[in-house]
Amino acid sequence: MSRVVIAGIGQIPVGEFWDVSLRSMATRAMLAAIKDAGGMKPQAVYIGNLLAPVISHQANLGALLTDNAGLRHTEAYTVEAAGASGAGAFRLGYMAVLSGYVDVALVVGVEKFTDWTDGQEEAVAQAADSDYEAVQGATFTSQAALLMQRYLHEFKAPRETFAEFALLAHDNAVGNPNAMFRKPIRREVYEQAELVSDPLNMFDVAPYADGAAAVLLTRSDLAPKELAHPLVAVAGSSCVTDTMALHDRPDPLNFLAAGFSVERACRQAGLMPKDVDFFELYDAFTIYSALSLEAAGFAPRGQAWKLARDGSLSLKGHLPINTLGGLKGRGNPLGATGVYQIVDACLQLRGEAGTNQLENPHRALVQALGGPASTAITHVLEKV
Amino acid sequence: MSRVVIAGIGQIPVGEFWDVSLRSMATRAMLAAIKDAGGMKPQAVYIGNLLAPVISHQANLGALLTDNAGLRHTEAYTVEAAGASGAGAFRLGYMAVLSGYVDVALVVGVEKFTDWTDGQEEAVAQAADSDYEAVQGATFTSQAALLMQRYLHEFKAPRETFAEFALLAHDNAVGNPNAMFRKPIRREVYEQAELVSDPLNMFDVAPYADGAAAVLLTRSDLAPKELAHPLVAVAGSSCVTDTMALHDRPDPLNFLAAGFSVERACRQAGLMPKDVDFFELYDAFTIYSALSLEAAGFAPRGQAWKLARDGSLSLKGHLPINTLGGLKGRGNPLGATGVYQIVDACLQLRGEAGTNQLENPHRALVQALGGPASTAITHVLEKV
Repeated sequence: MSRVVIAGIGQIPVGEFWDVSLRSMATRAMLAAIKDAGGMKPQAVYIGNLLAPVISHQANLGALLTDNAGLRHTEAYTVEAAGASGAGAFRLGYMAVLSGYVDVALVVGVEKFTDWTDGQEEAVAQAADSDYEAVQGATFTSQAALLMQRYLHEFKAPRETFAEFALLAHDNAVGNPNAMFRKPIRREVYEQAELVSDPLNMFDVAPYADGAAAVLLTRSDLAPKELAHPLVAVAGSSCVTDTMALHDRPDPLNFLAAGFSVERACRQAGLMPKDVDFFELYDAFTIYSALSLEAAGFAPRGQAWKLARDGSLSLKGHLPINTLGGLKGRGNPLGATGVYQIVDACLQLRGEAGTNQLENPHRALVQALGGPASTAITHVLEKV
Repeated sequence: MSRVVIAGIGQIPVGEFWDVSLRSMATRAMLAAIKDAGGMKPQAVYIGNLLAPVISHQANLGALLTDNAGLRHTEAYTVEAAGASGAGAFRLGYMAVLSGYVDVALVVGVEKFTDWTDGQEEAVAQAADSDYEAVQGATFTSQAALLMQRYLHEFKAPRETFAEFALLAHDNAVGNPNAMFRKPIRREVYEQAELVSDPLNMFDVAPYADGAAAVLLTRSDLAPKELAHPLVAVAGSSCVTDTMALHDRPDPLNFLAAGFSVERACRQAGLMPKDVDFFELYDAFTIYSALSLEAAGFAPRGQAWKLARDGSLSLKGHLPINTLGGLKGRGNPLGATGVYQIVDACLQLRGEAGTNQLENPHRALVQALGGPASTAITHVLEKV
């Protein structure tokens, strides 16, 4: 049976590109993915982006990017779902190929965060509830601080164990040439870091950044036979929303949409979460890592910090997470992040993760969140 | 064979809603469409919107609107393709149902234009090329003026015939209770109207406005049997892009993407453009009407104004356009417009167009444009 597969991947390093335009960044990733797929020509381009209208005064990226990448007359539009925008574009590409209507779809996530030097946090806060949260100053960072404070209080988790998530991310990023921060950090550095929003310190927060990543989707029977790398199939896909505002949830420490979307994606793939070999999760904040692991069922409520402490989540552990540095080590180019996560998973499944290569992994769970799991988009990827 | 059908439609009147929030506007249209479809519960909500991030400081409408409409945990995200955003969301809904992955999809277009009292034209200009057009002051309106000037020069079209498009739109809007302008205008009023951007006068330009419209898509075998209205099938769907910037086109008077997308949508539907009973086109400017008619092949290059003059485009003509007022008479709530156009076509095909009802129409061509056909999304709809 023919499956929807990823035939090519492409990315540029995550960082601050003051000298490269949004369209150039995206085009580099797009052309890299097309080349990696043996030159397959896409019939459709789906774009994940959050901030271009606000920061770069640029909408209609569909026409802009197809034009710039030499793909004129190709179907194209933007998908936006806050931090899960890239994952949303990927899901759209998946459905388009699945429908039989599109044979070859290119998915690109792009974010140009550094076009603006003032008010970025405000720009990102538009992805929260503008009328009831953002306008009160409740940014994602301050909300993550509330979540962590509540977590520490409720579960008596030791504050210092959250260091493990940050240390792990930075350790893994060392082996990723496309990561923004390729230096390990020492525990003392974490412990002495400046507070961003009590109790979150600088290392609990993934830095917003510029970036672009792309993948090319097609049907397995259409993929070129001579590719030098294995194909990666999309075995499960799911998008679930929750309340927009954190304060509307009876239990804010339960990332319900994250849990539902893992469940649905795994059910479609015919497996249990424990059957995956690694988990690329959305660690915009260290507390998100803990809550995502618990939502997916990898740890009981209030216990995920123990997995971090006992080494289970490292490259040698039984459930490696964020194997190439995650958002914390790679950087978080918001609307592009969901596609970077897919690319990272593909590198592992294809055996191209370099010094960070896991031993022959077959299945990956990949999840992006929009806000505090207001939107959760999860995919199960499988080496063909 | 099971087809993708529109089982329900909903809309609020187009206008200026200073006292209604974005989420409330959208929710009213969403609930109306669900009710019209006999209460079918959507598994996914696709949202067409252009300006919420810039004007209302609100992104992630997926989580916001599903939450507000009582559809918590439903898949949802935003599709953006400038003025064709609503049509893009509809196309995504169509593909999702076609893929078999989603049984019931709700598509909603929403735009809240009046949240901001200053700089709206600048906000809309973000849908043009920001680096090479908008920043120079080349708004869509000024570009449409250039197009009309060139058209008048090149084809010796009489300036006064463009009045026909505006008069027709206002005539048709009289019978549409959801239109913004329900008054016919006299030729002298058109001729004496203030210039907006020479040679465009006020009546050559559709007014930006607030609005929300929704349609519910499902498979024909799943639609409730007891609905009081016929189903409308999606027979063809296509999205095509062109250069982002008008100045990059060898022939700016050729809306190439508009033509290609009509061709592809009609080919999928197994018919020729002339086989449709009416055409809901994107008359953001009267010159767009002429160029869209020519791109679709309804008139030779430089001749569409003759169709307007000889009455062919009126409700009694052989190719009625914008039968409920189009963008000019209804108002142009940008990201919502593509869905309003689909709703208008459904009203005609269902025989619910009131005093504007065409005689037993079977097929509609519906087209939305992002910018000057930088993006063109076309659908063929058919009464089942």
